Amino acid sequence: MNFCSECGDIVRLSIPAGDNLPRHVCLGCGTIHYSNPKLVVGCIAEWQDQILLCRRSIEPRHGFWTLPAGFMENGESTIQAAVRETREEACAHVEIRQLFSLVNVPHIGQVHLFYRAYLLAPDFAAGQESLETALFSETAIPWPSLAFESVACCLRAYFAARKSGVFNIHEETLRPMRC
Amino acid sequence: MNFCSECGDIVRLSIPAGDNLPRHVCLGCGTIHYSNPKLVVGCIAEWQDQILLCRRSIEPRHGFWTLPAGFMENGESTIQAAVRETREEACAHVEIRQLFSLVNVPHIGQVHLFYRAYLLAPDFAAGQESLETALFSETAIPWPSLAFESVACCLRAYFAARKSGVFNIHEETLRPMRC
Repeated sequence: MNFCSECGDIVRLSIPAGDNLPRHVCLGCGTIHYSNPKLVVGCIAEWQDQILLCRRSIEPRHGFWTLPAGFMENGESTIQAAVRETREEACAHVEIRQLFSLVNVPHIGQVHLFYRAYLLAPDFAAGQESLETALFSETAIPWPSLAFESVACCLRAYFAARKSGVFNIHEETLRPMRC
Repeated sequence: MNFCSECGDIVRLSIPAGDNLPRHVCLGCGTIHYSNPKLVVGCIAEWQDQILLCRRSIEPRHGFWTLPAGFMENGESTIQAAVRETREEACAHVEIRQLFSLVNVPHIGQVHLFYRAYLLAPDFAAGQESLETALFSETAIPWPSLAFESVACCLRAYFAARKSGVFNIHEETLRPMRC
């Protein structure tokens, strides 16, 4: 951030009075610009013992598989976001069961939420951000070709919960991966 | 938003190619500026059968009672945010038990998360954003003097769960209140 989005003047990092973290503060109008984590919300959409994955047609991680998920928008609820992302990325209609997974990704300022959901019918197709979509049983999950560590975490916890029959909420915090 | 925070040029609302919602797009450098919901995270901090509330020393809702909670910061996890807010607002140290409540407040672009937590000792005091802090049993909760509907929702669900002995995650979406 270089300029104030309110007045166009220059901003500088400084700690406002009563605060304890540096913020972008406008040298002209004094507006304090906060930057906060973003929510990414999606679904584990079930059809019998299979779940729905999408192969990404966009960067980052073009060509890799992911759960249908994306940035939550203003004006919607987390459930509405999960349903919308599943419709947009997989042309699929779901009924939400419950929140299953909360994965913190603090090094990129994101919190990922995944809901368990039912597919209302085994009808799906690649949306604009997908190359293909498909149902996978547990043994067929393409683990090395998953797009994101949060998705892998969520799915590991999901299949473990399915074995135990108890779907307590799964919570995990990721650390930056070594390259 | 009037100006681009990257280059200082003017922004206009338009729907970018491949998108379906209007965004602030810079007429100079083309940067697309997204605005997304913010996370507010806090604690239901328990001491025996009582919970900790803070009376706000700041607007909005100066003088009203709330659970210790605040905006999540970049670089922290949701649990770290809940612990930090409880320390800052109530000078209290907690150990987190589990995520209990997710309250969507879509008309103001917020998602509120409340964790169940233990107070490590009955030691607390008003932080910078509080006039006072106190422990309340269920019958003493100052319902008409609670600061936010999300806090009231969360506490109603919490005491109901406590009666039943089952703390399934509570999820609710608030609508704008009629004045």
